[in-house]
Amino acid sequence: MAAEALSSWCDGRVKLAILDFVSRVTTKGRADFVLPADRIAVFDNDGTLWCEQPQQVQFFFGHDRLATLAQYDPTLHQRQPFKAYLEQDLAGIHEMGKRGLFQVAAAEHAGMTEDAFDEMARTWLANARHPKLAVPFTRLIYLPQLELLAYLRANGFKTFIVSGGGVDLIRAFSEEVYGVAREQVIGSSVRTHFEVQGSRCELLKLAEINSFDDREEKVVNIGLHIGRRPILAFGNSDGDLAMLRYTKAGKGPRLALLLHHDDEEREFSYDRDFPLSPLAEALDKSSEYGLTVVSMKRDWRAVFAEQPAAGPVLAEA
Amino acid sequence: MAAEALSSWCDGRVKLAILDFVSRVTTKGRADFVLPADRIAVFDNDGTLWCEQPQQVQFFFGHDRLATLAQYDPTLHQRQPFKAYLEQDLAGIHEMGKRGLFQVAAAEHAGMTEDAFDEMARTWLANARHPKLAVPFTRLIYLPQLELLAYLRANGFKTFIVSGGGVDLIRAFSEEVYGVAREQVIGSSVRTHFEVQGSRCELLKLAEINSFDDREEKVVNIGLHIGRRPILAFGNSDGDLAMLRYTKAGKGPRLALLLHHDDEEREFSYDRDFPLSPLAEALDKSSEYGLTVVSMKRDWRAVFAEQPAAGPVLAEA
Repeated sequence: MAAEALSSWCDGRVKLAILDFVSRVTTKGRADFVLPADRIAVFDNDGTLWCEQPQQVQFFFGHDRLATLAQYDPTLHQRQPFKAYLEQDLAGIHEMGKRGLFQVAAAEHAGMTEDAFDEMARTWLANARHPKLAVPFTRLIYLPQLELLAYLRANGFKTFIVSGGGVDLIRAFSEEVYGVAREQVIGSSVRTHFEVQGSRCELLKLAEINSFDDREEKVVNIGLHIGRRPILAFGNSDGDLAMLRYTKAGKGPRLALLLHHDDEEREFSYDRDFPLSPLAEALDKSSEYGLTVVSMKRDWRAVFAEQPAAGPVLAEA
Repeated sequence: MAAEALSSWCDGRVKLAILDFVSRVTTKGRADFVLPADRIAVFDNDGTLWCEQPQQVQFFFGHDRLATLAQYDPTLHQRQPFKAYLEQDLAGIHEMGKRGLFQVAAAEHAGMTEDAFDEMARTWLANARHPKLAVPFTRLIYLPQLELLAYLRANGFKTFIVSGGGVDLIRAFSEEVYGVAREQVIGSSVRTHFEVQGSRCELLKLAEINSFDDREEKVVNIGLHIGRRPILAFGNSDGDLAMLRYTKAGKGPRLALLLHHDDEEREFSYDRDFPLSPLAEALDKSSEYGLTVVSMKRDWRAVFAEQPAAGPVLAEA
């Protein structure tokens, strides 16, 4: 039955490692048994749970939000970093780095209530389409990962998302699509302010970054939000390396998985040259760090619940 | 059966309000039905779930930790704000306010790993005794609240603690005592740093406050950690007012409860004059804000699972 639960995973070393790990930590009386409260599993989102090519979904969302803002303030088309984001000028975006990203994120969030932002994100997700594949982004979720999340929960794990993406965008679909409750989503965030106006009490978003949940900050936020070292972590880039190593370094049984996008037939093939979120050190040192590399091509029988029609899924960006 | 679950609550208006609220939000087909995912309940800790007299437990913990540090650095006995905290000089502590508190908290945490701090907190909780009642602090948990937490969870609620106290101290006993998982505890925190030394990967605490989880900041942290407006909130001071009002201001059925310590026979009688955490505005405007005032004397059949022996529990501090 365990094997059937992961039917989109090919038989082989990786699938066996997952099944063996879950069996060891859930079988009472075994030396590696872990109490349910300690069965914490953390997953990166972009490139780990859903497709991040040609850009992370966050960028498409941000683009559309900026375009709306630019209707009211056309000077955004002339001013950097907004210009680069509006024109989807990837080189320019990359060049302006975190500073540009933070400015854009702040502008996109500032002045909205949490509730209004959530509604906007839901509407966007329902209507937006992948630029090349013409399907909603939530159709580009990896089927083997949905199976793995469900399998872990069926075995008493609590599943968390720990993403560099904006927490509010992920929370707008995580329950319906991943089965991960809003409070089990950790991500990048802006600061908020509690506003009272008569009987209205709202959380208002400010133009200031609260947390950029990437690299070491992922571990910091795991400590802050979960307060417990995970026993399983799954990532796909060097941005996840700190979280993977933190997970592996705990006492007792641990599993750290690294998805390698090596399947240009069904999805995409990329690693160290992806500017927004490269995979290099984690791949090069996977043995030394004890990471289990998951090859999309070799280890996944299916990638999506429904393979998009467009032949090789994504042409070069 | 519902009524039996709250057997330490006296029959009356308040207990009826709780039973009615839970019945309304959990009965399918009723206009007020709330999906389980939205059944979020938040509880303050000090003075709401356990006794905070003559001082909040956090202060006793901090005192003992400072005393240990002073063995290595005796100058702490001469320097403020440490001197006031070591001497439990409440007037001095109050006078130095948040700034003093933050300095002390920073010194108490800095340089420890999350894991080491957790172990220290557990050891302290196992050995420390209330100065007047000579019982472990975890014996001074309010029985009616344990029943309420369990009753809510049995009805599909997720229960969270949102406390001004240090998150790590609460997490060290919340699962065993309250049945509230570590990741469902939100509290004050210091910043941390991810450190790698060879195969050791640790979260190290820094001498810098990350969040002082009081008043408006409680709402900000509910947004950050839970990402959803609660439908039930329980507090006991003006420090909880923002959270209570935020909860009440949402659409649909809401319940905001305010514990009034008016029982000097079994516990303590105090409100607006308690310097560390006064109750004034919330009490004065309870009707206007739609808060349900819970009288310890009138509404609780028992206060503790085992009433401590010392007659009137707490003499004047």
